[in-house]
Amino acid sequence: MKKVFFSFLLLFCISFHLSFAQEATPTDAQFIRKIYDEALTNSNSYEWLEYLSLEIGARLAGSSEAAAAVEFTKQMMDTLNLDDVRLQEVMVPHWVRGDKEIVRIVNSSRGDVDFHVLALGNSVGTGPEGLVAEVVEVHGLEELESLGREEIEGKIVFYNRPMDGKHIHTFRAYGGAVDQRVRGAAAAAKYGAVATLVRSMTTSIDYVPHTGVQIYEAGVPQIPATAISTKDADLLSDLLQKEPVKIYIRSTCRMLEEKLSYNVIGEIRGSEFPDEIILVGGHLDTWDVGHGAHDDGAGCVQSMDVMALFRQMGYQPKRTIRAVMFMNEENGGRGAKKYWSASNDKGEYHMVAIESDAGGFSPRGFSCDADKSVFDAHFNRVKAWEPLFQPYGVNIYKGGSGADIGAGKSQKGILFGLRPDSQRYFDLHHTAIDTFDKINKRELELGTAAMATLVYLLDKYGLEDEPLGE
Amino acid sequence: MKKVFFSFLLLFCISFHLSFAQEATPTDAQFIRKIYDEALTNSNSYEWLEYLSLEIGARLAGSSEAAAAVEFTKQMMDTLNLDDVRLQEVMVPHWVRGDKEIVRIVNSSRGDVDFHVLALGNSVGTGPEGLVAEVVEVHGLEELESLGREEIEGKIVFYNRPMDGKHIHTFRAYGGAVDQRVRGAAAAAKYGAVATLVRSMTTSIDYVPHTGVQIYEAGVPQIPATAISTKDADLLSDLLQKEPVKIYIRSTCRMLEEKLSYNVIGEIRGSEFPDEIILVGGHLDTWDVGHGAHDDGAGCVQSMDVMALFRQMGYQPKRTIRAVMFMNEENGGRGAKKYWSASNDKGEYHMVAIESDAGGFSPRGFSCDADKSVFDAHFNRVKAWEPLFQPYGVNIYKGGSGADIGAGKSQKGILFGLRPDSQRYFDLHHTAIDTFDKINKRELELGTAAMATLVYLLDKYGLEDEPLGE
Repeated sequence: MKKVFFSFLLLFCISFHLSFAQEATPTDAQFIRKIYDEALTNSNSYEWLEYLSLEIGARLAGSSEAAAAVEFTKQMMDTLNLDDVRLQEVMVPHWVRGDKEIVRIVNSSRGDVDFHVLALGNSVGTGPEGLVAEVVEVHGLEELESLGREEIEGKIVFYNRPMDGKHIHTFRAYGGAVDQRVRGAAAAAKYGAVATLVRSMTTSIDYVPHTGVQIYEAGVPQIPATAISTKDADLLSDLLQKEPVKIYIRSTCRMLEEKLSYNVIGEIRGSEFPDEIILVGGHLDTWDVGHGAHDDGAGCVQSMDVMALFRQMGYQPKRTIRAVMFMNEENGGRGAKKYWSASNDKGEYHMVAIESDAGGFSPRGFSCDADKSVFDAHFNRVKAWEPLFQPYGVNIYKGGSGADIGAGKSQKGILFGLRPDSQRYFDLHHTAIDTFDKINKRELELGTAAMATLVYLLDKYGLEDEPLGE
Repeated sequence: MKKVFFSFLLLFCISFHLSFAQEATPTDAQFIRKIYDEALTNSNSYEWLEYLSLEIGARLAGSSEAAAAVEFTKQMMDTLNLDDVRLQEVMVPHWVRGDKEIVRIVNSSRGDVDFHVLALGNSVGTGPEGLVAEVVEVHGLEELESLGREEIEGKIVFYNRPMDGKHIHTFRAYGGAVDQRVRGAAAAAKYGAVATLVRSMTTSIDYVPHTGVQIYEAGVPQIPATAISTKDADLLSDLLQKEPVKIYIRSTCRMLEEKLSYNVIGEIRGSEFPDEIILVGGHLDTWDVGHGAHDDGAGCVQSMDVMALFRQMGYQPKRTIRAVMFMNEENGGRGAKKYWSASNDKGEYHMVAIESDAGGFSPRGFSCDADKSVFDAHFNRVKAWEPLFQPYGVNIYKGGSGADIGAGKSQKGILFGLRPDSQRYFDLHHTAIDTFDKINKRELELGTAAMATLVYLLDKYGLEDEPLGE
């Protein structure tokens, strides 16, 4: 009995020790408060984003603006007294939009009606003559298949399944509709369609067209793919209830030769565990309209500002903190592919990767992902720190991370996506109205602070149980 | 021992019964989901607010626009098939701004400099000739007192304590600075000041002046009080470091005769407990610039839409649900005074009052208040329902309620303030840029849904333990 009791006591002591080791201290709350103070009163992110938005503007991979953005962000990081700032070469696709696209109803009783449109990224154009064809409306890839070649051949397929506005998190609504945009042209081409139109990916009913990537399939004809605004989509659908509709499409977008571009990387080397990397990142490229202020200028300047904050506060991390501005997230993901393949080749270990690519809005949490073999341990460790985020309205929950860091999962660290309030994001996403005036300075800064807080805790305590460093 | 055991069992059963009685059922989660579905896909609030903002616009108490807003909201509620829609008479102050104000530095080496300004509400004007005086800067009422009559007499007092941007909840920052605006003129007049300027109540550094109420004291001279933009405040403060600054102020604002106006009230009568009132409300008046879209058109249309949603869903409440659009919140609070004094005279019991007057932004919670004698019981009851709000990111916490419902506390029900994300609010508050384009439709609708959810739970379960009704 005595023996059992002592075993029990020992077990208790061990588990107490373990929980002590991973439990944050009161001084952590104070340090986190200082991070927020610094972010809200002495940060760089808003001014950096102003420059990226207003002086450089849209910066699609391969464009001269993307090159300017590489140069600018490298220069800014050079001012931060980091241990290393470098460019990582990556070949990127170079797609250009060409002339302003035309999508016009040519047999309407109301005369010609021009839609508000944007060719989808990577799409071929119709060429300067354009094309005319009848429209057939579908609401998804299954419906397309059920119609078959007989109904599709020679026609323009119009994908018109709306994003479901009933989702509270708008990214879920996006996830439930975006297959039409990404794979719709390839799917329709298999049945002989000559072009596709797709309802813009937004719950907003307006005249703003949303571009975005579409992907052709090898061995399938490449046909022009164009997004139309939701109001135009509703109009077209109404007309199709009454009579056949013929549409003229003209677009001269095309893919040029690949170009050399860069990921931009800045780093503070860890004093104790330099081989344990904590990555913060966003993507530097944007679509070729608007400013790419929320998508993803915000994520870039926040990541850079995490580095700046630590330097300003004189915080020397134990682990290596690395800010990465990925190139070509929007229409190829080449920057991420290059980064992670080089990282794996070097045998690096990313203990943590945090991506901000959901807009610079008021932060509400981090979604958390990891390899299945380590997920529970990693997640529970970080979840235990949630009370420290509570004063700032930030939660930790299970979910995805981000397009540029997902490949880091195989290194068996932990991945996070910063999750800001999502209500406004898809009003702007991939449009000409994703502009700097839509950014709220404090919301942007609170995102930076949330990321810096997560980095701080993970840097200080790591993912494994270990004694408190200080 | 057996007896003790049975006592324990009995206690367990009682507490089980109690917790069962006040515990919401799985069907509640489903019904709440339906409330959100309806709010996000079939609501009226956005269109109503568009009309209030763009067709009527700014609607200060006593203005013809305020009268139009009374008429419009009554008409809209008349379409909802409520059990009663009525106007409640209330006499309101009628303040007018007069000519565009001038605040000009007249002794600058750079020549005359005009500031971006708005007279504070209820302020007297300088009269058409204006006045010129030297400026003395203070950072609060205490500093004013420490300077005393010697330093103040004959001068313009410039209140320049900024809102503290380090607060996460911006209303706290507002609360920490707004005494300068509300009581600054009366305090300065006691020491012989001839006018006051006050730094605009915002953390944003820009050229947008923010008006707001200021209150004179009986027996103290009334002097003109004017808000200047934060950039102008910073400039003025810089100049004052170098040399004395003389300023010319001209304003012709003045208080006219009181006018008859109205609170607008709509009601669905309860089927079982009609004497237990659940109030949802906002204020119909606004400042005389901008659209008053967030302050507080949003709260009005959300309150009306709670009524509309229940009608659309065919929900018959057990208790009486009452939407109240209060008049004259901004510069007198007469609507609230009238409403609560009439309510007390009739011996009414407001079991619940919910105010939305913090902007139409993404809802993050409800702050909860009640008379001390009942607070714990009421708060704990509602706090237990928090998991039902969790899918919608809404928390229940202790705090204030709102200016128009606070007086209802003496009826010993429970009071709530809807708390949306606060980061953008004070960029717009009381300004010409609080306009309809700053409203996001989904954020507005989510606020409506959160209010309707709270009303539903309180209507169904009440504040006292009672058996489940159905």
